[in-house]
Amino acid sequence: MGEEKKTALVPGRVGIVGLGLMGGSFAKALHAGGREVYGWNRTHSVTELAEIETIDGELTDDVVPTCELIILAGYPQVSIDWLVQMADILSPGAIVIDTVGVKRVICERCFKIAEGRPWTFVGCHPMAGTQYSGFAHSRANMFHNAPMVVVPPKMDDFERADMLERLEQLLEPCGFGSMTLSTPEHHDEVIAFTSQLAHVVSNAYVKSPSCTVHKGFSAGSYRDLTRVARLNARMWTELFLDNADNLSFEIGNLIGHLQEYKDAIDDRDAERLQGLLADGDRRKREVEDR
Amino acid sequence: MGEEKKTALVPGRVGIVGLGLMGGSFAKALHAGGREVYGWNRTHSVTELAEIETIDGELTDDVVPTCELIILAGYPQVSIDWLVQMADILSPGAIVIDTVGVKRVICERCFKIAEGRPWTFVGCHPMAGTQYSGFAHSRANMFHNAPMVVVPPKMDDFERADMLERLEQLLEPCGFGSMTLSTPEHHDEVIAFTSQLAHVVSNAYVKSPSCTVHKGFSAGSYRDLTRVARLNARMWTELFLDNADNLSFEIGNLIGHLQEYKDAIDDRDAERLQGLLADGDRRKREVEDR
Repeated sequence: MGEEKKTALVPGRVGIVGLGLMGGSFAKALHAGGREVYGWNRTHSVTELAEIETIDGELTDDVVPTCELIILAGYPQVSIDWLVQMADILSPGAIVIDTVGVKRVICERCFKIAEGRPWTFVGCHPMAGTQYSGFAHSRANMFHNAPMVVVPPKMDDFERADMLERLEQLLEPCGFGSMTLSTPEHHDEVIAFTSQLAHVVSNAYVKSPSCTVHKGFSAGSYRDLTRVARLNARMWTELFLDNADNLSFEIGNLIGHLQEYKDAIDDRDAERLQGLLADGDRRKREVEDR
Repeated sequence: MGEEKKTALVPGRVGIVGLGLMGGSFAKALHAGGREVYGWNRTHSVTELAEIETIDGELTDDVVPTCELIILAGYPQVSIDWLVQMADILSPGAIVIDTVGVKRVICERCFKIAEGRPWTFVGCHPMAGTQYSGFAHSRANMFHNAPMVVVPPKMDDFERADMLERLEQLLEPCGFGSMTLSTPEHHDEVIAFTSQLAHVVSNAYVKSPSCTVHKGFSAGSYRDLTRVARLNARMWTELFLDNADNLSFEIGNLIGHLQEYKDAIDDRDAERLQGLLADGDRRKREVEDR
């Protein structure tokens, strides 16, 4: 029998893979909350920058087995590759979460990697961010009051309650406003509407010929509609294609509704147009009152 | 010869026709700035409410000829009807402005009413508001730093400069961030994009079947995209149909662009999708850098 390398898990220690907008914000929030934080980033200069005052050190192969919580905060494929590579050295009892904006693809892969191993993968989607990317824009209060969607693997109710409680404690310094349990399928369906469609619409909105001449003619509604037009095209392409069915449905649905308004306007049909607007107003009120 | 009734214009005195969100906000801002403000509202109880601490009195036929500035802040047709009725008793030198969100229809009518009369009609569109309506939601700081689009009648440069300077002085307590001169045609073209399209998209956005189940799954981008889904359906129907040509173009243009994203997604064409997203990102950056 070979000699077994013993490495003890350090309670509360966090390892973060990818120090961009999300990973950087987790690092800053957890560090500010007094947690021990180790980080790794593909571009090494970012790790060095984070080491100045955000992380306690680099997340090396020696540190990985001592972490109670691992946060995969990079691109989906980078996260999956990292997990495959580290699957056998993660500590028994460790919790691994991701931060990817789609959950079917990543959970299917990562639940499988975790299968039969003594640590747990939990899909997570923190509903926060900005239109900017990178460590420079990350901040300790990024998740303050934000909703978090949590997609646990199949486990019995007791295990799941325990896992959720531990996760809440581990992430307590982030100040999430809520943690909502979901399935990968339900998550991807709803997120296509609440987040992905918003980015598509905003990005398409600025493609009008009037967009270059609106100085002095725009206010809050324009600003709100186009805020997320600025986006990381490469990252969102990957997220959109990993949720193509749901997003395609939502875009098609919106196109159909927009066409109804256009038809009513083209027909100069005030009654029909007012009915369409009143219906949207009513739906918005109903949701707000929930 | 009949006896001529003499009524002296009181410098700085303001008359406001319609005490809703816009008119109420003008009244509050100007009153807070020490101006004498008189108001009229079709529903008389609102006038009485405003008299408690916002206006100096009701804008009666006796007061109208003493006002240096008249603000037409009601529905387009109500504003036009009021102006026709008062055209002969308005004071020489008075400036009449409106606050309607489209300018071709209202300016054509009101420039004609003012023709050959000793007062001036100036089309105005204060680019401010909220998703709520009515006097109860009006506030003194509504126009603070907001842009104002100003559509003057045909006049020589000297007259126009004088008129603009007087208007700036009269509205000084409102704290507008800018006053941009425009023609009715240019205004309506740009506003179809910056404001009307935003309201159509937002109102259509909430018509997805996912809209009722998104609790815990939504954050800033959803909130921004749907903020103006709540709207005054009757008012916006009138505004949209008075700008039907421009708005129909903008909706059609957006539908075309949305279809491009949908096609790229349906074809699982990452390169094309990333190109579309990068193009929107680039346009948004260019406009922000202007």
